[in-house]
Amino acid sequence: MDRLYVDRIGRVCDRMKVQGIGQLMVTDYLSIYYLTGMEVHPGERFWGLLVGDDGSLRLFANRLFNIGETDISVTFFDDSDDIAGVVSAHIRKGRLGVDKTMASRFLLPIMEACRDTSFELGSDCVDDVRAIKDDEEKELMRRASRINDACMEKLAAFIHEGVTEKECAAYLDGCYAEYGCDGLSFPSIVSFGENAADPHHHPDDTVLKEGDCIVIDIGCIKDHYCSDMTRTYFWKKADPDQIKVYETVKEANERAEALVKAGIRLCDIDAAARDHISAEGYGEYFTHRLGHFIGMEDHEKGDVSSVNTKETKAGMIFSIEPGIYLPGQVGVRIEDLVIVTEEGCEILNHVSKELCILGN
Amino acid sequence: MDRLYVDRIGRVCDRMKVQGIGQLMVTDYLSIYYLTGMEVHPGERFWGLLVGDDGSLRLFANRLFNIGETDISVTFFDDSDDIAGVVSAHIRKGRLGVDKTMASRFLLPIMEACRDTSFELGSDCVDDVRAIKDDEEKELMRRASRINDACMEKLAAFIHEGVTEKECAAYLDGCYAEYGCDGLSFPSIVSFGENAADPHHHPDDTVLKEGDCIVIDIGCIKDHYCSDMTRTYFWKKADPDQIKVYETVKEANERAEALVKAGIRLCDIDAAARDHISAEGYGEYFTHRLGHFIGMEDHEKGDVSSVNTKETKAGMIFSIEPGIYLPGQVGVRIEDLVIVTEEGCEILNHVSKELCILGN
Repeated sequence: MDRLYVDRIGRVCDRMKVQGIGQLMVTDYLSIYYLTGMEVHPGERFWGLLVGDDGSLRLFANRLFNIGETDISVTFFDDSDDIAGVVSAHIRKGRLGVDKTMASRFLLPIMEACRDTSFELGSDCVDDVRAIKDDEEKELMRRASRINDACMEKLAAFIHEGVTEKECAAYLDGCYAEYGCDGLSFPSIVSFGENAADPHHHPDDTVLKEGDCIVIDIGCIKDHYCSDMTRTYFWKKADPDQIKVYETVKEANERAEALVKAGIRLCDIDAAARDHISAEGYGEYFTHRLGHFIGMEDHEKGDVSSVNTKETKAGMIFSIEPGIYLPGQVGVRIEDLVIVTEEGCEILNHVSKELCILGN
Repeated sequence: MDRLYVDRIGRVCDRMKVQGIGQLMVTDYLSIYYLTGMEVHPGERFWGLLVGDDGSLRLFANRLFNIGETDISVTFFDDSDDIAGVVSAHIRKGRLGVDKTMASRFLLPIMEACRDTSFELGSDCVDDVRAIKDDEEKELMRRASRINDACMEKLAAFIHEGVTEKECAAYLDGCYAEYGCDGLSFPSIVSFGENAADPHHHPDDTVLKEGDCIVIDIGCIKDHYCSDMTRTYFWKKADPDQIKVYETVKEANERAEALVKAGIRLCDIDAAARDHISAEGYGEYFTHRLGHFIGMEDHEKGDVSSVNTKETKAGMIFSIEPGIYLPGQVGVRIEDLVIVTEEGCEILNHVSKELCILGN
């Protein structure tokens, strides 16, 4: 097995020993890809990697999967097999960790078949390793964000009189396809005017009109890694209230980013943005956490929120995305991804955050 | 609450009584949409509907969700709340069913918090109701398949000298978008020549060449419901061996469809296709089950396979998709969706299944 995967599994085993679980069932196909390089999209079928704290590995694979050559031990099964029976034969007494997305249709029958084993969440053993990106991953994250920067700028140039939110989203699909992306990190958000006051508004047939804010929250997947960025523009004009909201969000974004480095509590980064927004009188309109971790998934374990007292470590990648949402009026959000370093952070997005009024 | 949802919940409660579970936790957002009309994409957050066998309902919703007005009781929580604590306060002693996709990150802590409750899979109580489509659903399924028919014919007309699999898949994205689809039922499969011998090949840069088979397995989502169809064409010519494979698959498809009506064992429908393929000497090259149930998801609970001895009921919708895959040579698959009726079945796809050699 490639050195990369041996290292990653070693780090998982270290955490298993700390938690005291001798065996861990990994069922998230992205985690299995991360730990072995083997990519299977199992759909409704079972696909699992049983990890022992001594580094031993066993895969459970439906014979329909095209798993190719591997030096990992594989237990194959068919659609008609009793999965719980097949899997339980390899599970020892004692404690077994399972990862956080394991589906009840597998978990409950396996628990039933392994009465002498105690089941617990062991997801952190993998998720905390995935949270610290290695050099290969950082480079892939930079690349996905470079594409995202380019597509944001193309979209800003595309926006024109009479355009709808849906047309902008469709234009973006084409941009990402041109760059050979594997897909979107999440459905694109393009929100005009008061629609932007709902942070999760879906693009509809709303037509752009003078004085609208334009919130664009977008990301692509390239070579398994996600980008995610938000910029807010205005169309033709912006009134003083809108500009004040914009500048407040921008300052909050920059204050938080200025604070990021290894060893800072995540809640303190959240506070750096939130306190500024509150001081400007918009505290109740910043309705979500400041950021989320990201990698092979747009939302990975870990967040930048008021309740997360954990400290940053070098190699973590997360979003910094303060927002202010005034119902019926305006929404503004400005988001970058950052890589934590010992001395500070590397900001992965380079599209200007200066107030920009399009269409003039 | 709308009559439609009251009826659906009534049918779920009937099944709960048969299984003997007094309470059911539904976490699949599509099942919640099916039972309440409320659509939330919860991402990594908890979104649950607790159903009592007396028809009582309680939703568990993160305050960030935009759930709108409802007459259902809702327990709200925040990101920083202990979900297991919030939920367990509403779970009684005795037996609790959970649906099949409930994630371990919610299931295990809730089990821990409800030591006097026994947890079991109760998914069938919802899934078996979802498997029998009501009139509204049948009409939505017909509509999605009509779009799929139109897009298949557009793609067949688009295929030209020098085209790649990826270009065909991208062309399809555009076709579906024109019809206002919400997305794809699954990533489009367009496989040329020997690529088609892998039933799950992903479109790549392979260029079409004379004598290639062209397997096109595609579907869209329109108003929440999925289509799914496969046709196999040839480019410029087909040799006698290819034609024999094609005609064998077509005959298998038609024999199976001719057998479908209410009260037939699903395994017997599988056998109708499989026996014909075996009799023609290709038995070992038909490597998958004959079909899968479909509705709001491309693959729903239920299949048409050699081991499924359950009987069809009117209103079930599933695929009939025999295939023959000769490694290194050719692949042929022909798939329709069918609605089971008392007297037979309604075939939802109308694109011709006659042997068709494109490019002449």
